Amino acid sequence: MAGDKKMVEQITSMDEDFAQWYTDIVKKADLVDYSSVKGCMIIRPYGYAIWENIQSILDKRFKELGHENVYMPMFIPETLLNKEKDHVEGFAPEVAWVTHGGSEPLAERLCVRPTSETLFCEHYANIIRSWRDLPKLYNQWCSVVRWEKNTRPFLRTREFLWQEGHTMHATAAEAEAETLQMLDVYADFYEKCLAIPVVRGRKTDKEKFAGALATYTVEAMMHDGKALQGATSHNFGDGFAHAFDIKYLDKNNTLQYCHQTSWGITTRTIGALIMAHGDNNGLVLPPAVAPIQVIVVPVQQHKEGVLDKAYEVLSGLRGFVRADIDASDNSPGWKFAQYEMKGVPLRLELGPKDIENNQCVLVRRDNRQKYFVSLDDLQTEIPRILAELNDALFASALQRRKEMTYTVQTLDEMIETAKEKPGFIRAMWCGDEACEIKLKEVAEVTSRCLPFGEEGFGETCVCCGKPAKKLVYWGKAY
Amino acid sequence: MAGDKKMVEQITSMDEDFAQWYTDIVKKADLVDYSSVKGCMIIRPYGYAIWENIQSILDKRFKELGHENVYMPMFIPETLLNKEKDHVEGFAPEVAWVTHGGSEPLAERLCVRPTSETLFCEHYANIIRSWRDLPKLYNQWCSVVRWEKNTRPFLRTREFLWQEGHTMHATAAEAEAETLQMLDVYADFYEKCLAIPVVRGRKTDKEKFAGALATYTVEAMMHDGKALQGATSHNFGDGFAHAFDIKYLDKNNTLQYCHQTSWGITTRTIGALIMAHGDNNGLVLPPAVAPIQVIVVPVQQHKEGVLDKAYEVLSGLRGFVRADIDASDNSPGWKFAQYEMKGVPLRLELGPKDIENNQCVLVRRDNRQKYFVSLDDLQTEIPRILAELNDALFASALQRRKEMTYTVQTLDEMIETAKEKPGFIRAMWCGDEACEIKLKEVAEVTSRCLPFGEEGFGETCVCCGKPAKKLVYWGKAY
Repeated sequence: MAGDKKMVEQITSMDEDFAQWYTDIVKKADLVDYSSVKGCMIIRPYGYAIWENIQSILDKRFKELGHENVYMPMFIPETLLNKEKDHVEGFAPEVAWVTHGGSEPLAERLCVRPTSETLFCEHYANIIRSWRDLPKLYNQWCSVVRWEKNTRPFLRTREFLWQEGHTMHATAAEAEAETLQMLDVYADFYEKCLAIPVVRGRKTDKEKFAGALATYTVEAMMHDGKALQGATSHNFGDGFAHAFDIKYLDKNNTLQYCHQTSWGITTRTIGALIMAHGDNNGLVLPPAVAPIQVIVVPVQQHKEGVLDKAYEVLSGLRGFVRADIDASDNSPGWKFAQYEMKGVPLRLELGPKDIENNQCVLVRRDNRQKYFVSLDDLQTEIPRILAELNDALFASALQRRKEMTYTVQTLDEMIETAKEKPGFIRAMWCGDEACEIKLKEVAEVTSRCLPFGEEGFGETCVCCGKPAKKLVYWGKAY
Repeated sequence: MAGDKKMVEQITSMDEDFAQWYTDIVKKADLVDYSSVKGCMIIRPYGYAIWENIQSILDKRFKELGHENVYMPMFIPETLLNKEKDHVEGFAPEVAWVTHGGSEPLAERLCVRPTSETLFCEHYANIIRSWRDLPKLYNQWCSVVRWEKNTRPFLRTREFLWQEGHTMHATAAEAEAETLQMLDVYADFYEKCLAIPVVRGRKTDKEKFAGALATYTVEAMMHDGKALQGATSHNFGDGFAHAFDIKYLDKNNTLQYCHQTSWGITTRTIGALIMAHGDNNGLVLPPAVAPIQVIVVPVQQHKEGVLDKAYEVLSGLRGFVRADIDASDNSPGWKFAQYEMKGVPLRLELGPKDIENNQCVLVRRDNRQKYFVSLDDLQTEIPRILAELNDALFASALQRRKEMTYTVQTLDEMIETAKEKPGFIRAMWCGDEACEIKLKEVAEVTSRCLPFGEEGFGETCVCCGKPAKKLVYWGKAY
């Protein structure tokens, strides 16, 4: 790994300016670069390697659950997009339109896919005939485009990478089970692999996906108390099936409409990683998705035998962790700061004294805790310390969420809390969209979700005072 | 694996109508479906799984050679595309233009990337400062768009999937070495993993990539004698570096222009697989990229113990090959035909008699050779037979290429051979583009490449009779 002799640049403190801190990290940890393509980002090797790790874990899980990958065209003819009314109303205002091929105007303009329900539906209508063809469990990894006005790397860009699962089922119950199963896959991935605790729940009708019967979400809390929707899973019922005429012959030879789901996770997950675990020294990556899990930093590397031994250790590490070495002529101090910026979970320091004692020093990224470990024990100690670090990241994020989650009963409390205390706000709601709109106006919060498995704590709506049965998480969101 | 009780549909014989035979296979082996998006294809699970295997093998190889993956925007602003003169002339006539975002016209129209040299160059100009930053070895897996008039699944579609490597080097020699190294990676992949022999060589100036100094190619021969360009590797010299001002400070503190390469392979490789190995029973897949390497077909599966044993065998297979089972209620005969259509390299038949004898029958897809193998020996026998099959596919394709490669000395011979004998035509050429154009007119052939490591056999150009030093492979091509 090459590197110039130079100072590691400081980043803005997150307490001083959280947005600038975020921007500094995406640039200085080499995750992203800008280009002349406004609103789009270049995902650099280090950032893309995180995405590859996310893909690899999830793709394996999807396949274990019987899903198959496909590839659909990136274009959607306007008439096809228009087939489902709610859907087109939701997406048409923010799609990019292709109007010319070469120098010729197209007979019909095409949008660049903002999501692919319509394409999957058209295909499913072609290939589904009987109950034997069901379920169909397809997934696609691709990029999609939504013409956003205000963009930020990973969080909101005109083009982003994602996967979109689209499944077809014989019954409403099976579709609902699939929707919830995939929500669990995402929740599990966030909590186990990204060490980010999430609230699982259902979106209100106002916040649900255009055309869906129900949208489920996993909501994560960032360092600044704002919510980030981590992934979503939608049950479409048979709405699209009616619009696209997707029917199958059941075992009694009767035609039935199919029931449908879709579910997705995007590159904004990398934004979540930054804002859930990062600190004033840079990124902090959970081991499961860290491109480099252990960075070897030789100390006094000009001394005889140090580099040789460092490479020997590296070669051993590569049997069980993603490891790299920085043997550049930069100072160890520079390297320490550099790999802290990049969020590498563990640093392995090795100098002449260590070699004499057949040991090395391991330093955890999250709390800089040092471990003096025999070179013979690395294969057991490193996985153990990485697991400890992962647990600590999760515990710390969970603790923060607990401390920054508030329960309110009245509108005044809601307004004051939203103004004074960043975080999640739990409050009862009557179910009326007018109250959602009003809370957005007066408290600047949106409903994040109706959480699973939490009991209500009052009988009246925080906004209008009318009877309420629904507990809602509210917050400001990315 | 489910399947209706039905007949396996016949496909057109390749001798009767090669084009229809090809179309039948892509549809009936479930590789592709059509949609309302003209000129684009849906890559179905079985087709996409082949692509995933291709990706996985090549991605690993690229990374071993030090390449890193990135993701660039899918859009290119018109001014950026226009920066390199030859490049824009080559691509502008066939790009799709985005002119509106939502309901608003864009200030500058954007093309959907036909290839990403311009984006990589802009980025490299941003991040390359000194000799320490070189080489930069980036690769991208994505889709690209070229507005073709006549399209065919895999071979020529308006959108296709590919990888595009883009590298920057300090010297011309390093760039040339990289260009040739990547050509070798492709050649090796074609010959070892796809069992398709290729001719490596250089493209003539007329056939080279828009903006390149030199384009190298691997050319494969299809069943019908036509050539298919399997992958290309380009040396750009410092042309784009001048256009985009990509410079670095060398060790003497002098500014130098970078030297650049790009190289790519696309989903048309799947078309090559079909047309190099397929037969009148369907697809024939080489084991390295076959989604299913062994299909277990239970015989008399209603008899007690057969299905249980079949699943037990399957579970053992999964430790060392990609295996699946068809336990549907279709007849064994239907299943045999179905997995022949899908090109599965090996079929494992298991019936009550076999179970009694602790054996099974393995049947090779390419020649239907049968092997009676003890169930205890599968782990050694299956890899051995798969390797044999792979060698046989390669040998047969090589033999065909030998038989269908002709050497000609005169224009009359060339015209007659091109008309009567499908295949490659070796002929000497003066190097003048006028002769290339004339040969295209009178013999309907294009220059495929100036092959590496083959000696010339005459002194005069096959077309004009002037002095010639260059041996060229000519042919009709996909």
